[in-house]
Amino acid sequence: MNPIKFLEKQGCKVTYLDVGEDGVVKPEDVEKALRPETVLVSIMYANNEIGAIQPIAEIGKILKNHRAIFHTDACQAAGYLNLDVEKLGIDLMTVNGSKIYGPKGTGFLYAKRGIRLKPLMHGGGQEAGLRPGTENVPAIIGLSEALAKVQKRRVKESKRLIAIRDYFIKRLTKEIPKIFLNGHPKKRLPNNINISILGVEGESVVLYLDEAGIACATGSACNSEKLESSHVIMAIRNDYAYSHGSLRFTLGKDNTKKEIDYVMKVLPKVVEKLRKISATWQK
Amino acid sequence: MNPIKFLEKQGCKVTYLDVGEDGVVKPEDVEKALRPETVLVSIMYANNEIGAIQPIAEIGKILKNHRAIFHTDACQAAGYLNLDVEKLGIDLMTVNGSKIYGPKGTGFLYAKRGIRLKPLMHGGGQEAGLRPGTENVPAIIGLSEALAKVQKRRVKESKRLIAIRDYFIKRLTKEIPKIFLNGHPKKRLPNNINISILGVEGESVVLYLDEAGIACATGSACNSEKLESSHVIMAIRNDYAYSHGSLRFTLGKDNTKKEIDYVMKVLPKVVEKLRKISATWQK
Repeated sequence: MNPIKFLEKQGCKVTYLDVGEDGVVKPEDVEKALRPETVLVSIMYANNEIGAIQPIAEIGKILKNHRAIFHTDACQAAGYLNLDVEKLGIDLMTVNGSKIYGPKGTGFLYAKRGIRLKPLMHGGGQEAGLRPGTENVPAIIGLSEALAKVQKRRVKESKRLIAIRDYFIKRLTKEIPKIFLNGHPKKRLPNNINISILGVEGESVVLYLDEAGIACATGSACNSEKLESSHVIMAIRNDYAYSHGSLRFTLGKDNTKKEIDYVMKVLPKVVEKLRKISATWQK
Repeated sequence: MNPIKFLEKQGCKVTYLDVGEDGVVKPEDVEKALRPETVLVSIMYANNEIGAIQPIAEIGKILKNHRAIFHTDACQAAGYLNLDVEKLGIDLMTVNGSKIYGPKGTGFLYAKRGIRLKPLMHGGGQEAGLRPGTENVPAIIGLSEALAKVQKRRVKESKRLIAIRDYFIKRLTKEIPKIFLNGHPKKRLPNNINISILGVEGESVVLYLDEAGIACATGSACNSEKLESSHVIMAIRNDYAYSHGSLRFTLGKDNTKKEIDYVMKVLPKVVEKLRKISATWQK
């Protein structure tokens, strides 16, 4: 959002697309929004808060006959989804290392042959003049290895996580009253659980769970210092009760079903306690 | 140079200062070049090719009564020189990790309190909105530890390296004819030896020495892919014979006098061999 807002300030005309309640962009909306002068379409592959998987291949097909360059942010997707850029019709793709068990501080931009990029920084001629600075070779190798590894095991690992995810969602919605899943139940990343718990502040739940050794988040990690309401939850719910009470659990390679059972031992009590002192909760 | 050239293209008025044969900027030249509207003075603390140490503290004094912000690139200096930004009168200082045995891919910009910076990239609000991206905590800690360590031992280590450096320079100029030290013999980094060997191509010497297990360079490491003549050697010598035949040895914490003896066993033979087939060498 922020690079786009910055470009808008520089005079670029930007169209922001709406999403449905499931958090998914409709390919026909992309098609309708295209203008002859449109130079860039950027749709994230999977959302970082609610895990909504976007129909990238379908959008890629629509853009095939348009001059616009198609960019996708695949940071959340790289561990679980197909990254075949040709099949997806992608021109530019961003992936980072820390989401796929790679080295921190790494990432890459895939650019289709023929796309000319302008550097953001100027200095040494490293990386074909695109990014100055002594190349961090171990980190580059690490990122490449990490991507190869997660992509190799992505189908098997997705299956394993989907089972845990759906078990967790089932127990959450069954055992805690007035709790709602954000985003589509199936068109979501295997590792993403995002819920709104009415009548509580998500931030308070995070703190109580942290005390019990459970790590979860409200909103995105990048904005964890701000206490602003999640713009993603607002986009799909348009209701502060849902965004204030939203909570994200993200599963990883080491998480197990047993850990979910532990969360389900702790979380209902935390919610009950917080609702007792809540000004917005009515039984 | 390249960020400045980029700004120049954007319409900024830039004055490039000359250096003497020793590669050192004269403080009075800085003073003369200042205009009332000058907003930035950037002088590197020590040069990356010939190791010339610039009179930063003197220039800092001159700038005290001027609005211009004083920036120094201290990447080469951080391991050996005093980084007391207040004493030096510095407003902005860049340091990188890989030159001080810190983690690759790291660096920092010191900014004096009150200086407002604009981000180059836009995204997450990390680092007070100045640089988006998940913070690489281990690398940050590593950089900080590395700087503390090199600064702690800098006086002792400088003394050790100066002895090796001067021994090397003495043998080079004594044992190989028509070899010249580039830069000031004393106002240079303890670890830098830069010479011009007339009648040979520096690049050929690099290759032969590499075969013998000796690592050295022509020009800067950042431009090692280009075979252009060093603009630094040209600035002090204004003679292609000197820049083509220039060679840089950089000492580090593990180098010893014994290794210099080994280089002095190999290098004279390499020079002799290359001069035999040289079109520009006359006995």
